[in-house]
Amino acid sequence: MKTLPIALAALALAAPAWAKDAPSPNEIVDAAPASDWVTIAPSDLLVMDLAPDHDGSSTSSGPRRVVIQLMPPPFSQGWIGNIRKLAQAHWWDGTAITRVQDNYVVQWGDPGAEDKAKARPLPPGLATVPENEYSSSASEIWPIIKSATEHDAIGTPPPTHPVILKDPYAEASLDWHGWPVGTDGGRMWPVHCYGMVGVGRDMPPNTGSGAELYTVIGQAPRHLDRNIALVGRVIEGMEYLSSLPRGHGPLGFYQNPEHRVPIASIRLGNEVSGLPAYQYLSTESGTFARYADARANRRDPFFIVPASGADICNVPVPIRRAP
Amino acid sequence: MKTLPIALAALALAAPAWAKDAPSPNEIVDAAPASDWVTIAPSDLLVMDLAPDHDGSSTSSGPRRVVIQLMPPPFSQGWIGNIRKLAQAHWWDGTAITRVQDNYVVQWGDPGAEDKAKARPLPPGLATVPENEYSSSASEIWPIIKSATEHDAIGTPPPTHPVILKDPYAEASLDWHGWPVGTDGGRMWPVHCYGMVGVGRDMPPNTGSGAELYTVIGQAPRHLDRNIALVGRVIEGMEYLSSLPRGHGPLGFYQNPEHRVPIASIRLGNEVSGLPAYQYLSTESGTFARYADARANRRDPFFIVPASGADICNVPVPIRRAP
Repeated sequence: MKTLPIALAALALAAPAWAKDAPSPNEIVDAAPASDWVTIAPSDLLVMDLAPDHDGSSTSSGPRRVVIQLMPPPFSQGWIGNIRKLAQAHWWDGTAITRVQDNYVVQWGDPGAEDKAKARPLPPGLATVPENEYSSSASEIWPIIKSATEHDAIGTPPPTHPVILKDPYAEASLDWHGWPVGTDGGRMWPVHCYGMVGVGRDMPPNTGSGAELYTVIGQAPRHLDRNIALVGRVIEGMEYLSSLPRGHGPLGFYQNPEHRVPIASIRLGNEVSGLPAYQYLSTESGTFARYADARANRRDPFFIVPASGADICNVPVPIRRAP
Repeated sequence: MKTLPIALAALALAAPAWAKDAPSPNEIVDAAPASDWVTIAPSDLLVMDLAPDHDGSSTSSGPRRVVIQLMPPPFSQGWIGNIRKLAQAHWWDGTAITRVQDNYVVQWGDPGAEDKAKARPLPPGLATVPENEYSSSASEIWPIIKSATEHDAIGTPPPTHPVILKDPYAEASLDWHGWPVGTDGGRMWPVHCYGMVGVGRDMPPNTGSGAELYTVIGQAPRHLDRNIALVGRVIEGMEYLSSLPRGHGPLGFYQNPEHRVPIASIRLGNEVSGLPAYQYLSTESGTFARYADARANRRDPFFIVPASGADICNVPVPIRRAP
């Protein structure tokens, strides 16, 4: 287990955290030392380039590019292994975005998947992942949570790590090793927040191969947690998905095939030349604890009532291009 | 205080609610008797017609129309009175959507508002609403909540009314008289869910006039609850707002004025000819209690793990055109 920084004593001596002109969450993040940022390995990125849109334009700076960060162990590695194989096989090139359901998901994959005669063959060697991999052992995290909840409370400065959140869908939730997770006594699982990427599937016990993916474009559909695999999150270019025209077929599928958005290519980041380096703010840092506390208790001048709490999906892990 | 239907005894005699092939939330709503639907008065609707988009097209069926339901008392009536006056004065005609911030809000109003020389004069007689109207007395609702939480638990069928939800931003939340509300011991307030419409404002103690409005297009920004007035929700045409191109100026404002989306008109529903009748599912009905329970515990065949809870913003009040 990684040790967690307990370097917050100085904060308790500073002005009360509810003082006027308290920093906003963004200001706290902007002041983070370089050592609080963790660089994401290019091999843990999935880069999706969309074909030019209907009027022939892409963006002024090139194709519409969506960058996805894949999850580290212990989460969803069976599906992520499949996704690496699909990307290495260039399997998604020429597939399409087929579904845009408002306040729910954008989904992409093989438009012919439902028709065996037209379906694109999957590359060999994909794993069939069992349902119990929707969650992981929480044995590492649980002592931390129990310890934190015994002496901490949201809204009581100074913030200590980790910031444990009240959650309608879990016994507690928190940001942990870079990802939002829900927990119960024995298990933990990644949660469906805006921009998270998951694996489409058929009826259970099917768990999906990873060839059909979606991202969340509305209120976190947390009822999907532990029912469907999450494999990553969009870290750049989300607007190219969230602003697409909504589909008007059942479940938001495009009725007219011409409305589908063709995918030019999906590659692992280490196969893409000129890709910027991306970093996330360490969720084990003192900066992150202060940021999460400020998200739960807005004391910057625009606000008059701090909430005394936050939804896990309203404490997104900050991501940036490396400066 | 309205009496609440306790007509659920029959449900307890039916098959266990977690049985295979349990109905989905939508199936429960589709089976509601006509008497569970409440017709919305046209005078409580605000109808926004957008000008045709850049390539000259609107939709095949006419202008891009967004229909908003205004809140009833006791919520936000000071601002809603202003909004009625602004609509009656046709004040918004020729204003524009000026801001689209991904995973946050779409905002509209007078593009010249920041420049006194260019600002469009407001109609006379608008109220200045005090901050304490961000919330209302909960004296009517509190005994119901206390009574319900003492003998109910989410996930324990049969569902009883009201379904009280665990909430990171409130002591509890529930759908009440047609609207999602948060509560504490003494107060209740409407909450910022996807599609809710609120009043832009300057720094406190300014509370906004109602001339500048926004709607939520991402994860519920619940930290705004009690900090900003909510006045209604989009009940039709949400996609014409949520799928707009994102702005790239600070806070998602469009940097290029040509990217703003002109508003042709905003009218109260009783001034619009040919408007359909809209209805919402009574939140005091037995159907709604079963629907809310099913949202919190998905037992329909796609799901393998019911959540045992739900976020208030994941229990949206069903709305339909009257059949």
